[in-house]
Amino acid sequence: MEIVITEVEVKDVRFPTSLLADGSDAMHTDPDYSCAYVVIKTNKGIEGYGLTFTLGRGTEIVVQACKSMSYLVKGQNVNEIFTHFGSFWRKLTSESQLRWIGPEKGVIHLATAAIINALWDLWARIENKPVWKLLTDLSPEQLVSTIDFRYITDVITKEEAVKLLKENQKGKEEREEMLRKNGYPAYTTQVGWLGYNDAKVKELCNKFLALGFTSFKVKVGQNITDDVRRCRLVRDAIGHENKLMLDANQIWDINESIEWMKQLVKFKPIWIEEPTSPDDILGHAKIANELRPYGIGVATGEMCANRVMFKQLLQARAIDYCQIDSARIGGINEILAVYLMAKKMGVPVCPHAGGVGLCEMVQHLQMWDFICLSASTENRVIEYVDQQHEHFEHPVCVQNASYMPPMSPGYSTKLNEECIKNYSYPNGAKWKDMYEQGLFYKSLN
Amino acid sequence: MEIVITEVEVKDVRFPTSLLADGSDAMHTDPDYSCAYVVIKTNKGIEGYGLTFTLGRGTEIVVQACKSMSYLVKGQNVNEIFTHFGSFWRKLTSESQLRWIGPEKGVIHLATAAIINALWDLWARIENKPVWKLLTDLSPEQLVSTIDFRYITDVITKEEAVKLLKENQKGKEEREEMLRKNGYPAYTTQVGWLGYNDAKVKELCNKFLALGFTSFKVKVGQNITDDVRRCRLVRDAIGHENKLMLDANQIWDINESIEWMKQLVKFKPIWIEEPTSPDDILGHAKIANELRPYGIGVATGEMCANRVMFKQLLQARAIDYCQIDSARIGGINEILAVYLMAKKMGVPVCPHAGGVGLCEMVQHLQMWDFICLSASTENRVIEYVDQQHEHFEHPVCVQNASYMPPMSPGYSTKLNEECIKNYSYPNGAKWKDMYEQGLFYKSLN
Repeated sequence: MEIVITEVEVKDVRFPTSLLADGSDAMHTDPDYSCAYVVIKTNKGIEGYGLTFTLGRGTEIVVQACKSMSYLVKGQNVNEIFTHFGSFWRKLTSESQLRWIGPEKGVIHLATAAIINALWDLWARIENKPVWKLLTDLSPEQLVSTIDFRYITDVITKEEAVKLLKENQKGKEEREEMLRKNGYPAYTTQVGWLGYNDAKVKELCNKFLALGFTSFKVKVGQNITDDVRRCRLVRDAIGHENKLMLDANQIWDINESIEWMKQLVKFKPIWIEEPTSPDDILGHAKIANELRPYGIGVATGEMCANRVMFKQLLQARAIDYCQIDSARIGGINEILAVYLMAKKMGVPVCPHAGGVGLCEMVQHLQMWDFICLSASTENRVIEYVDQQHEHFEHPVCVQNASYMPPMSPGYSTKLNEECIKNYSYPNGAKWKDMYEQGLFYKSLN
Repeated sequence: MEIVITEVEVKDVRFPTSLLADGSDAMHTDPDYSCAYVVIKTNKGIEGYGLTFTLGRGTEIVVQACKSMSYLVKGQNVNEIFTHFGSFWRKLTSESQLRWIGPEKGVIHLATAAIINALWDLWARIENKPVWKLLTDLSPEQLVSTIDFRYITDVITKEEAVKLLKENQKGKEEREEMLRKNGYPAYTTQVGWLGYNDAKVKELCNKFLALGFTSFKVKVGQNITDDVRRCRLVRDAIGHENKLMLDANQIWDINESIEWMKQLVKFKPIWIEEPTSPDDILGHAKIANELRPYGIGVATGEMCANRVMFKQLLQARAIDYCQIDSARIGGINEILAVYLMAKKMGVPVCPHAGGVGLCEMVQHLQMWDFICLSASTENRVIEYVDQQHEHFEHPVCVQNASYMPPMSPGYSTKLNEECIKNYSYPNGAKWKDMYEQGLFYKSLN
């Protein structure tokens, strides 16, 4: 069956989350969770759906980038793409004129992620499998053939990657069975958005405790007095048998990170996430070095630009937890490279999620990791935020604080018709209502 | 006088340089030199002109980003901006929703550069001075107030920056006088674009020798046999009394860089530029370490994303020459931070130029550096490419292989009317001709 890509549709979809301060943190005070949404159409009717997450303004720029890149995808034979996926990925990321405005970072790489994610969704739909199962069923050689090793061969080569995957071939079936039965452990970020008041924080702690959660993340970094009060409140609510993580969303300089965190040691957080600029590898290494004696690890990755930056975070021992993001670096192909490097360097991966569709995607990746690569859930946990799932045809299913393996074909990123109709920006039905009510002004861009 | 910004116009301007292989290198085989061009209009008629350089496709994305950011500039009082330029810069780069699609890198940072460059041009026009003179006349405290020190205080603080500037206050007049008389030394990249044949390379060596040039840069990295032949050809033509630089434009992995360069040691290049990914700080450090014993330095910076990346290149001793770019990091404010860090760490700045308008801009910065900060031209030289200057109202003036100080008010980046008419993309007169002649296809984006 010859399947050819005939069209690439790109949509700007936004949700007005800033109205309730959902998702607010020290740097992103009023996010409107959004996405650039890509639909890849084929001559056989089968379609692929992919997205990259954004915060509202600026989605139009990513949409433009997806459109500008789509000429590289249109007209292609999908079998050709999937058979030589590593080379195709390089073709996309190394386009001789477009690479100047990256390379492999920012808007153009977010657009790459949306397109590549849609291609994996398409592949999984063609194979009639969820992405985690597609990945799991690929041979080590096939899986590694999807990766572009440019710029990372000093840490991992193709041959080493194949070897790492072969090491844990045994036991795959048992681990798949365990997943189907128990799911994969999740943690919640939902108790501690900066915009929430103390009563709401306490109420949410109790709610998530009752749901079976054992790991809780709190935003910090705007005011040390507030942070101390909120950490105490959460620690008191969740007890010492549960885990507390802190997240500063890049607010601090290097020495400031260290000083601030020393004042929060008594609440025994297991990690401080994004203490400073996502680009500061040497800075994270210094912070990690200073905080390790206190039992506090450094976590980062949701804004890490690409595999070259992850490579260095691992080389420099700058991170204790590797937080891959499914929509910032260039889609599954590049994320697999990061998982393989993290495995080699002995750092657990704890994916960033939340936003729009991130939970839907990362569950597939982390389940593949458990079955095929790390063979462990030790120190590993997937972020969970209970927002924006209702817009997807096959939303995540979290039971007993665990992600249950998705069973529908694809990458779980198809938005339902209702969502597209209501939240397309700026002309969706809900947005029209909000302009009329004066809740939002229509942007002129 | 109350000057208020009333409008921000953004244009897509492209030149068909791929037709002659001008600018071709190992990664960018067919660039069409282009720019996103910003005109800031005010209620008093005075305007500011700024740009960021691009390679053709993708300019439309940067144009969209400039438009999306322009709401932050429209309606602002320019005195307010210039009095609190550091805070204004942060406001632009930390916009709570837009920063997600960077932060401070790629498309959104290129757009920041175009806007910030236009603001400096406007400021200099209001003061009726060229930018280098505006910078030179600012007190150390005023100059430093334009910089956002977020994420770099572990290497340089505001106070240290003021101190560095105060150290060389003496002798400013003499150095300004020297510049006015002799200009600032330039090197040429024009002898060795990868797309040029041997006869053309030889002819260009002789041409630029006759013009007084003593430093020559050659592109390498696609094929070692070709590189050896071309390096020998250029070295024979320019002799051993002149300087040879090599440029790989990011083509290699780390170990490959080292092995490849060892085969070119005999041609005694003073630097290898961009051996690998611009994001690989630790990789550049390893290459620099291995090549230093051979007298070869590492140069990079034209694709360095921001001050945080430059900070680390300096901290890790990964570069021997710091190649700031005037249009990739966020305009003059951020570039000043890089100059100050380079001074503190003892690394000479040799600006990247060529492209569209880069020579026009960097001459101002390097002249300020000579007068106020480094007080030296030792190991320092500005790249020069004799292309696309005719489109500017006040093009660079290079005499005896030296940039002569520009005397017109502003940042030398105003395109002439003829250029806008002819090369606006896709509807400029020259582009219409080219479609008719079948030289280019009109993009559908």
